[in-house]
Amino acid sequence: MTDYRKALTALVGSVGPLDEAAAKAAADRQLQLTKPTGSLGRLEELSVQLAGITGKAIPDIEPPVILVFAGDHGVASARGVSAYPPEVTAQMVLNYAAGGAVVCVLARQAGARVAAVDIGVMSELPQNGTYIHRRVKSGADDWTKGPAMSEEEALAALMAGADIVAEQATKGLGLLALGEMGIGNTATSSALLAALLGLAAEDVTGRGTGVDDAGYQRKIAAVKEGLALHADVVRSGDPVAILAALGGLEIAGMSGAMIAAASRRVPVIVDGFICSVSALIAVRICPAVREYLIPSHRSEECGQRLALEAIGLKPYFDMQMRLGEGSGAALAIPIVRSSVAVLRETATFAEASVSDR
Amino acid sequence: MTDYRKALTALVGSVGPLDEAAAKAAADRQLQLTKPTGSLGRLEELSVQLAGITGKAIPDIEPPVILVFAGDHGVASARGVSAYPPEVTAQMVLNYAAGGAVVCVLARQAGARVAAVDIGVMSELPQNGTYIHRRVKSGADDWTKGPAMSEEEALAALMAGADIVAEQATKGLGLLALGEMGIGNTATSSALLAALLGLAAEDVTGRGTGVDDAGYQRKIAAVKEGLALHADVVRSGDPVAILAALGGLEIAGMSGAMIAAASRRVPVIVDGFICSVSALIAVRICPAVREYLIPSHRSEECGQRLALEAIGLKPYFDMQMRLGEGSGAALAIPIVRSSVAVLRETATFAEASVSDR
Repeated sequence: MTDYRKALTALVGSVGPLDEAAAKAAADRQLQLTKPTGSLGRLEELSVQLAGITGKAIPDIEPPVILVFAGDHGVASARGVSAYPPEVTAQMVLNYAAGGAVVCVLARQAGARVAAVDIGVMSELPQNGTYIHRRVKSGADDWTKGPAMSEEEALAALMAGADIVAEQATKGLGLLALGEMGIGNTATSSALLAALLGLAAEDVTGRGTGVDDAGYQRKIAAVKEGLALHADVVRSGDPVAILAALGGLEIAGMSGAMIAAASRRVPVIVDGFICSVSALIAVRICPAVREYLIPSHRSEECGQRLALEAIGLKPYFDMQMRLGEGSGAALAIPIVRSSVAVLRETATFAEASVSDR
Repeated sequence: MTDYRKALTALVGSVGPLDEAAAKAAADRQLQLTKPTGSLGRLEELSVQLAGITGKAIPDIEPPVILVFAGDHGVASARGVSAYPPEVTAQMVLNYAAGGAVVCVLARQAGARVAAVDIGVMSELPQNGTYIHRRVKSGADDWTKGPAMSEEEALAALMAGADIVAEQATKGLGLLALGEMGIGNTATSSALLAALLGLAAEDVTGRGTGVDDAGYQRKIAAVKEGLALHADVVRSGDPVAILAALGGLEIAGMSGAMIAAASRRVPVIVDGFICSVSALIAVRICPAVREYLIPSHRSEECGQRLALEAIGLKPYFDMQMRLGEGSGAALAIPIVRSSVAVLRETATFAEASVSDR
């Protein structure tokens, strides 16, 4: 067993169940607050989940941190499956670093720290400290011609994601929102999802950032070829092997980050399609992670529904977004924070002298 | 024509169409921002709507204000249609004034000013300046025995809502979120909705704050009786006459506030069932108001879907909430603000040196 494999096994073993006593204390308190019983629906349930995750009857989820994992995909250059050229991945890392991207704007609105991670970008990038440098490999290889990466590289990317969460925790980490950037990564996510759920390419492939009809047909064809080439790995059902065969570095990084957050009892907000596939991989590697995951939005990308259903998550909102980069997860931060604020600050029937039923 | 009727007619006439030039400028800017074309879906559309409402290519929606209109319902005392006793309406006004209610917590999270309005509470309340005193009538009368109020009182309540918006504007008002409190007001809203849309009591009546089976049957029976008693008014289709026959003071107040906000080019966030019925009445009185309305959440109360569909609004999120008091509208404020922030702050492709497709 390699060092990365050992480290992942140890990490998986460190993820515990939710704290039932804290969850019960939160649920009991919800019953005493000045509102009709259960009238806040999923906002109440979320506060109870957060209590169970953090182990505190009044959860502490400050500060929120958004990590945007960036990686390239050989399949994008080789097969023309995206509406945008591959160099955009690196350009956007610099846009995140400069605070100009949508997720940076949403992070400021949510009062969240945001950091981009080069975990697998293809192009040269200045190592100037404005983003996190953890490149495992300069882009995943074209998975229609061979494996996207070796299993050792997949394990390294998983553990890079975990390490970054550990580093962020030293600066304060109460709530983790995840996002990604990678031209071609909806094609990769479709291939991974089909492999994990045993579905056909047509069922899991969408238009991504807006590929045209010809590009869409190329995308489906590429996913089919990838699934055929790696049929043995797909049959094995081994999530790390599937990740190596058909994956992306940023997808692996997010999965590792999720497992590490769960091991630290930090709740994780899941973003759109690609992030939902990462979540499915994380849950396949470590089923206990599921209870630490918080949904955000319904993505326009068709595969997200399948990924979330397989995990058992139901989105809170639907803005018909399909941007990625953690934009949906960032938009959920105020909702998550509000669920805790209601639990913490609402007056009880006794305190406010309001008649209960 | 009475003074109130004249004032309402003048107010309705002052609501103009959206500013198409500002909306187009916002839509053009969205195309230049560093994200795939259209990838923010309804968040982009919202920013364009806000530009059209405010008449500014980069809308200014600060500060947000939440108004919670409170009123009582004779039908609640007379027919036992609620899970909670009528005195809770007055008790909750004091809870809003003290900052202890859920909407106060959510307002703090959203950085919004919140004020409760006694527009029609039945019980005595201390006139201590901690909430807005604009009582038109001490509770609506039981609409199963006669009209809920006179047409003059309905007009007075509509204009009271409008006046309060004018007062709030002197303190700063960039975005209006509306909510209500009134034991029995889901029964009243069901009666109003059935009257406005020509539906049966069973189609529009839900469980409100959680009435039991027997209470639910009493509620449906009351709505049927009210519709039968006021059948002539219902047939007339006159929204003010229907409001007088079957309405509530807080419902009229919210409708008036919506028309006044629209006349000032201030966007209005619509809350749950009762507020959606208020919005339908506002639109029936003044169709141009429709473009100024912003949805928030899908309520658990079945009638809300029908009210919103009749207006042409589709909720952004679904937390299975059924609290009222503006809680859903308050939760939407960060989303509305984020839509503007993205438009204002996201780097363009040119600024960030990112390749467009």
